[in-house]
Amino acid sequence: MSELLQAGIEAGGTKFVVALGNAEGIRDWEKIDTTTPGETLDNVMDWLDAASQEHGRFDAIGIGSFGPVELDENSARYGSITTTPKPGWQNVPLVRVFAERFGVPVGFDTDVNAAALGEHLHGAGRGIDPLVYLTVGTGVGGGVIVNGGPLHGLLHPEMGHLLIPAPRRSAAVDAEGQCPFHPSCLEGFICGPAIAKRWGVAKAADLPSDSPAWEETGETLAHGLVNIALTLSPRRIIVGGGVVKAPGVLASARRHFQKLLNGYLQVPRITQDVENYIVEPGLGDWAGVRGALALAERAAGG
Amino acid sequence: MSELLQAGIEAGGTKFVVALGNAEGIRDWEKIDTTTPGETLDNVMDWLDAASQEHGRFDAIGIGSFGPVELDENSARYGSITTTPKPGWQNVPLVRVFAERFGVPVGFDTDVNAAALGEHLHGAGRGIDPLVYLTVGTGVGGGVIVNGGPLHGLLHPEMGHLLIPAPRRSAAVDAEGQCPFHPSCLEGFICGPAIAKRWGVAKAADLPSDSPAWEETGETLAHGLVNIALTLSPRRIIVGGGVVKAPGVLASARRHFQKLLNGYLQVPRITQDVENYIVEPGLGDWAGVRGALALAERAAGG
Repeated sequence: MSELLQAGIEAGGTKFVVALGNAEGIRDWEKIDTTTPGETLDNVMDWLDAASQEHGRFDAIGIGSFGPVELDENSARYGSITTTPKPGWQNVPLVRVFAERFGVPVGFDTDVNAAALGEHLHGAGRGIDPLVYLTVGTGVGGGVIVNGGPLHGLLHPEMGHLLIPAPRRSAAVDAEGQCPFHPSCLEGFICGPAIAKRWGVAKAADLPSDSPAWEETGETLAHGLVNIALTLSPRRIIVGGGVVKAPGVLASARRHFQKLLNGYLQVPRITQDVENYIVEPGLGDWAGVRGALALAERAAGG
Repeated sequence: MSELLQAGIEAGGTKFVVALGNAEGIRDWEKIDTTTPGETLDNVMDWLDAASQEHGRFDAIGIGSFGPVELDENSARYGSITTTPKPGWQNVPLVRVFAERFGVPVGFDTDVNAAALGEHLHGAGRGIDPLVYLTVGTGVGGGVIVNGGPLHGLLHPEMGHLLIPAPRRSAAVDAEGQCPFHPSCLEGFICGPAIAKRWGVAKAADLPSDSPAWEETGETLAHGLVNIALTLSPRRIIVGGGVVKAPGVLASARRHFQKLLNGYLQVPRITQDVENYIVEPGLGDWAGVRGALALAERAAGG
């Protein structure tokens, strides 16, 4: 009897990562550019066909997708990307497309809920519940595991847009947020493009490692982390994404997190051991696709 | 066979409400001033003795308490009030005191988690999950029901202290927050004492119903509601407490909630039906003690 395999898809706005594997790990994977829905999904399905010929059949598919997405199984739009500003990708019925083509169960969630699940099962959040996974990159987003599974509600967490006090530029002038929806939200200040604009560079990654941008980014990020801690009371917050790979961002975030809380939450994990409260991903950039594989396993009844 | 009864205690910083009843309703109740722990708890226990002689025995006790409290059953301090600034009430072991005196199971949670549970079972949150109960009064606090039960984590939700942009007093001057811990948090702007100070009256309730205070309070409250919606994705937010009884506060909060989100969450419940998303309690001021009775029923294995 051959080993059971699942297919995992991390559907991102710039690339898709598709993999064959299971809870033990990833057997094979591929990165596919996100172009039009038709072309992108064809490429993903072609790769899955070829990979399953090579490695064996998969019994379910899991998809962690950029959003917003429809997670309500009672909705006619369940399994679709909904109101994304990304041209052509509105109302793409991901679950239906893959279910019809492969005839297997399809699990579905947001990319960040999938990443949170991946970290919860295999990474820096093993056995930790509630758990938050926040990513700070081209955008800012967060996923939540509570009572063993991803948090769904009216929609799904959208923590990138938490309203926070604007960083000050001078005694009287606040920083200008870059979010087209909200003048003073987390993503509008600390997503990569916002940092680049604020500091006058083409890409945030062009900033030198000793730029004051990183300390300030950590301080602003800390406001979001405080609000998350006060609302969900997670036992750990994992922070991933390109921006926090810059030197000093996470250290600054931890320091300002404690400073902003100012002793209000008297919990040793926060007051004495914040390095184990706000942590880097254990799976690096693989959290999303490992989580997608776990969504597949759940869809298969595993 | 007589009907099963439980005891419910809403332990507040200014008063305790103690009741005998069950899921059907409250059989008898009393309000007891919060003075010293010894005196207050003696009065509560004396009332319970007398009431159970009149109405019948109770098989469990539920306590919803002001906090912060220790909810970790593995902690030696489980069931205690912990670091409250209230003189004399630090480290009062509520659960142990009642368990030893009455020899019955004791359920325990925060006052606001209890209120959320009460509303979830019997009030404006029936069958709605995730559900948030926010109270705005002398302080600001929030409870959460998710997957059928109160949310616990590293601690418990402390949403009163969400960091938000300060309301503006002029083009360059922000309002001054009144929280001793945080210069720009929800409670620091909209708890009753903060409103009174900002508008120069002894008590917020002294302000006339046409005061601009109420519109502004609703706008500031809306920042907290947005952050809660973005983090927990609740299917409904119940807002209780003395401050939101003032005319126009909740209407202002709903209007500004939509305005602040600015179309980012494209969900009809928010964009078209916000009156059914942000709602008043269904149980009025009884949510806490009904929730405490439900905690008792759960502790009894009900």
